[in-house]
Amino acid sequence: MKTASLKRSVFAALLLLPVLAWPHGQELKTIKLNEPNKTRGLPVMEALSVRASVREWSEKDVSFQDLSDLLWAANGINRPEIKKRTAASAQNAQDVDIYVFMKDGAYLYDALEHALVPVAAGDHRDEISMRPGSSPGGPGSAPPAKPEGPPPPQAKPAGPLSPAPIQLILVSDISRFRAGTTEVKKEWGAIDTGIVSQNIALFCAATGMATRPRASINRDLVKSLLKLTDTQYPMLNHPIGYPK
Amino acid sequence: MKTASLKRSVFAALLLLPVLAWPHGQELKTIKLNEPNKTRGLPVMEALSVRASVREWSEKDVSFQDLSDLLWAANGINRPEIKKRTAASAQNAQDVDIYVFMKDGAYLYDALEHALVPVAAGDHRDEISMRPGSSPGGPGSAPPAKPEGPPPPQAKPAGPLSPAPIQLILVSDISRFRAGTTEVKKEWGAIDTGIVSQNIALFCAATGMATRPRASINRDLVKSLLKLTDTQYPMLNHPIGYPK
Repeated sequence: MKTASLKRSVFAALLLLPVLAWPHGQELKTIKLNEPNKTRGLPVMEALSVRASVREWSEKDVSFQDLSDLLWAANGINRPEIKKRTAASAQNAQDVDIYVFMKDGAYLYDALEHALVPVAAGDHRDEISMRPGSSPGGPGSAPPAKPEGPPPPQAKPAGPLSPAPIQLILVSDISRFRAGTTEVKKEWGAIDTGIVSQNIALFCAATGMATRPRASINRDLVKSLLKLTDTQYPMLNHPIGYPK
Repeated sequence: MKTASLKRSVFAALLLLPVLAWPHGQELKTIKLNEPNKTRGLPVMEALSVRASVREWSEKDVSFQDLSDLLWAANGINRPEIKKRTAASAQNAQDVDIYVFMKDGAYLYDALEHALVPVAAGDHRDEISMRPGSSPGGPGSAPPAKPEGPPPPQAKPAGPLSPAPIQLILVSDISRFRAGTTEVKKEWGAIDTGIVSQNIALFCAATGMATRPRASINRDLVKSLLKLTDTQYPMLNHPIGYPK
């Protein structure tokens, strides 16, 4: 092969690299988040007074400071000297990871670095939550076609949710628990997820943002997009934005 | 039987009634809680900054206002017109009940009436949490004798917890979910429990109180004391008090 031809081949290969890399998110960059504002928000009892699960979001993008504060509130490091979190976890396993789905791609929240690490490029916000009808009926999903029992008095017909600018997926990695049966570990993972979920809900209530916890997740797609292992369970999703 | 003898027998039987009734708690009275103070507490981000699971509690009794506020914060009605709560739940099943163990007995928190309904008399605070050694290793329990894997870097040897003046037991009744397999319902019940748990933790962090979530529960004893059905799962306990 002549030198010129070799150069052309190398150049062509280099041109191709980003295309090959695209589905794996390597063209996305790690995003260092802003220092969290640790004084903001309504008093806790006022936040609890206005906490509610919403169904509609404004189209307005979430500000970078709000996203930085939200993720720290959800499961950030609040005691750096011992690497402990805003959310308790069974056996201090710190099993709950937060994946952040935005327009440009999906990122993993790295609590130690307070940064977003790219995982998958592209806009997957809409497809990761199951559509009504395909759901067994989790939080925020439409009522199932054939309820097994009488609906509670509060149950009301509910249409689909409006799109939100950010979708969080909470994933518990039960391999981080150092003891217990798989069944027990899954229970702890679910409890730990609920703890992180309420940090999110109360941060939103305290700062004029809007969310709801939803069990409706396209689990196969999420596992494949995020390259989850068999011990990583997608537990909840939280659409995030401002009220409509 | 002569009239005098009959009177004596009736009198003796009446004297015996409270003794027979004692283990079932009928001599305890329903306690109407104080109106919650819905403005108190640190801002949410400050509460998250100081949130930590404690191991020791002061012997000081919990004030009636603090208990009233705590239970409303945990899972009270924040939208009376639609009977919705400070804690979200899957399918709005409102599956999580809070049992309050105090010196005189155990009570169920009735959110609609914002009151404590007696369930079992007597001091059971100490016996409802499993001792280290008998636990599979839940949150707040001592590390197991033979860990299955290497302990996380944060793991430290921990002694038993000091007694707390109040123990809460969070119970999910999965029969309130109107759809889903038992496995899915148990997962939702655990997530919903975590949500209530974090309301408790953040209320405590915001008001100078102390708690921790613990999976260590003597489930057989709790089920028997509280007369739980097969669909009611004791999920977490929360010792409550002031910091030592």
